[in-house]
Amino acid sequence: MNNNPRIIYVGLIGYGTVGAGVVKLLEMRKNYIRNRFNTEFVIKTICDLAIEEKDKTGIESAKLTTNYEEIVTDPEINVVIELIGGLTPAKDIVMKSLRAKKHVITANKALISDSGKELFEFARKQNCHLFFESSVGAGIPIIKSMTEGVVGNKFNGIYGIVNGTCNYILTEMTKKGFSFVQALKEAQKKGYAESDPTLDINGMDSAHKLAILIYLAFGKKIKATDMYMEGITQIAQMDIEHATKLNYTIKLLAIAKKESDEIEARVHPILISNDNPLASINGVYNAVFFDCDPLGSILLSGEGAGQMAAASGVVSDLINLSGKEPNANLFCNLYDENEKLKIRKIDNVKTKFYIRFMAIDKPGVLATLAGVLGDHDISINSVSQKAHDKMSAVPVVMLTDFATEGMLRDALEKIQKLPITKGDPVAIRIMEQLW
Amino acid sequence: MNNNPRIIYVGLIGYGTVGAGVVKLLEMRKNYIRNRFNTEFVIKTICDLAIEEKDKTGIESAKLTTNYEEIVTDPEINVVIELIGGLTPAKDIVMKSLRAKKHVITANKALISDSGKELFEFARKQNCHLFFESSVGAGIPIIKSMTEGVVGNKFNGIYGIVNGTCNYILTEMTKKGFSFVQALKEAQKKGYAESDPTLDINGMDSAHKLAILIYLAFGKKIKATDMYMEGITQIAQMDIEHATKLNYTIKLLAIAKKESDEIEARVHPILISNDNPLASINGVYNAVFFDCDPLGSILLSGEGAGQMAAASGVVSDLINLSGKEPNANLFCNLYDENEKLKIRKIDNVKTKFYIRFMAIDKPGVLATLAGVLGDHDISINSVSQKAHDKMSAVPVVMLTDFATEGMLRDALEKIQKLPITKGDPVAIRIMEQLW
Repeated sequence: MNNNPRIIYVGLIGYGTVGAGVVKLLEMRKNYIRNRFNTEFVIKTICDLAIEEKDKTGIESAKLTTNYEEIVTDPEINVVIELIGGLTPAKDIVMKSLRAKKHVITANKALISDSGKELFEFARKQNCHLFFESSVGAGIPIIKSMTEGVVGNKFNGIYGIVNGTCNYILTEMTKKGFSFVQALKEAQKKGYAESDPTLDINGMDSAHKLAILIYLAFGKKIKATDMYMEGITQIAQMDIEHATKLNYTIKLLAIAKKESDEIEARVHPILISNDNPLASINGVYNAVFFDCDPLGSILLSGEGAGQMAAASGVVSDLINLSGKEPNANLFCNLYDENEKLKIRKIDNVKTKFYIRFMAIDKPGVLATLAGVLGDHDISINSVSQKAHDKMSAVPVVMLTDFATEGMLRDALEKIQKLPITKGDPVAIRIMEQLW
Repeated sequence: MNNNPRIIYVGLIGYGTVGAGVVKLLEMRKNYIRNRFNTEFVIKTICDLAIEEKDKTGIESAKLTTNYEEIVTDPEINVVIELIGGLTPAKDIVMKSLRAKKHVITANKALISDSGKELFEFARKQNCHLFFESSVGAGIPIIKSMTEGVVGNKFNGIYGIVNGTCNYILTEMTKKGFSFVQALKEAQKKGYAESDPTLDINGMDSAHKLAILIYLAFGKKIKATDMYMEGITQIAQMDIEHATKLNYTIKLLAIAKKESDEIEARVHPILISNDNPLASINGVYNAVFFDCDPLGSILLSGEGAGQMAAASGVVSDLINLSGKEPNANLFCNLYDENEKLKIRKIDNVKTKFYIRFMAIDKPGVLATLAGVLGDHDISINSVSQKAHDKMSAVPVVMLTDFATEGMLRDALEKIQKLPITKGDPVAIRIMEQLW
């Protein structure tokens, strides 16, 4: 194509790691974008509260400001990229941009998880695009696959490793025998965990992402804080070892499953069979597995975090929106099919369990433990007690058949009170075989 | 949305398994499509040479014909779905439909692999969509991920398990200890292999799909017949067992790798380390792994064949095109960046190898074999000879470091002439660790 390229003016709000990555990637791919799409993206204005302190390399020709109004009110700017994160003032930025009929790209999981529906509605009213690929799994095309790639399908379930920090920690614990504390320190040293890692390791970050996926898959807005959530801080090296011996890998999984009028929405550690590809998703990699109808199972995986992985998602969004006229009749992201879905109470969720007791090593102990579980209608699929030690408690590991959380908790409470066990029993769910 | 839905008239050419699946899926998802996209797809006309013999359930209101001209010349029809496969008359159907300014959806890998570039050019000229998701991996959103999902990226490599028949056969050989012939029979019995399975098991089907992916990733048209191709008929149960012991799984992989001005384009069996997620892609599942920049590695996997998996891709294409105005400035599929790329000669391709010799069991044999390899500059990473038998030849397995095909072939020819080995040596490539 030899005609003059279209110029699309971009306003960038938030010039941190990802913002700088977007500028870098647009420069790297400038010729490609011009040749292939006859388009040139010009970053006209960059807003950041700390813009004075930033490295200005590569942004010499942009107007720099600390006031985002200069972007959202600039009639020449076609697209606003919001990369500041959080709800305030991100929501105001997105609303004002849409009001001014600008397309918006954001990587803000908190914002889309909290206000996505409202923003999608407003974007449709304004006939503008609102793209957010990098809000879940960075540049892995998860959002696009859900909203376009398999759009004819009905979703039954979502199973995602969507937090790279947790996955890195669990991988180090598995491969190197580290304790949780050691693996966390290692992650912080490598820049894979923040100095305050709470929102990653307690599961909240995964829950935010799951809320976005649930809205897109099931058309139901669920608050991240309404989900059942269990982090990885309680995972002991001993349980990782037992899982490995049993041919499982422990991962933090975000799960959503629809069954008639109820939806399970939960984030917790889980044992995944080693012949499931999810078990091989290691380190900072993310993966999402969709169970949909009629396509069946699909798996998407890749680097789910990092400067350039996130920038890749933002730039793909930018190229995609520049090639599409929004059509108010078809705004894939707005979807209210299942507003009546109720979150299933965790007590009623049925899964298989890995249970580990520290028990006194004497005859009859296994029978007693199995007896209590049986009294609560919990069948045992396998039992193993490898070590023997007359002096102190030894681990007894049981894999159960399907049981509800409620039943299991009752049984464990009883067992905990027995004089033959020491300390708290450990229970970790086991992923069903879907693949 | 309460306004009257838009009606989009569809002409369906080819009413076999996939065609019937498309009709079924559109019926299943009718309410969803109307509610979410305010759109109704009406299959106005169905063309099939054997339409008289087909089950008419679900197509009572469609006009039936054996003459596709009735579809491509009908001004009311907006979209033509071509599902007859092959080049003739499929190409004529697609060209005539585009000429009449109809959008086109096809699942025809032979056609896109052979004439994709020409068709994309004509579609752009006509300002029409030409979608073909189901041509590779059925409904897995591989094409959409490449052309939109990660569109800002530069591709370095493609590694795909894209033939379900071969993957099913190799999985059965691995999990059940079947011979190739037994596993093929099993696949035919289950409907996973055709009565004449040649194009699947010799790698040609994979090569067609790889040609499509190469054009989309690298902007270079390569004929499937110009690629190096090796099928799975020579894989012996003994080599599957050795691979398993060495913690590898044998898969048929379609590989494209760009290095400066050359591209490797090859289809052959390969040993994949079991901690690579590709090793866990079993049965009729497909997977494609992209090495791209800056996103890094991404993996897409799912059911790559079957009536409803293919129908899922077609229906997603249909919903997607109905929501987008084509923009002649941005036609992602046309891409000529690397027209000058040359296919690297297979003799110059460097990989690691698994080699298995049947050798006489006596002292000095290993040293002789290793010596010949060393003379050809091939380093050995490991050797194993488990069985001992003074009466007959025993398998000796070696894993080499990187060596070119040419060097290896020369070495094997020498070794084959030595009196200490029996029969043909077996050499299977080993996949590099990318993940």
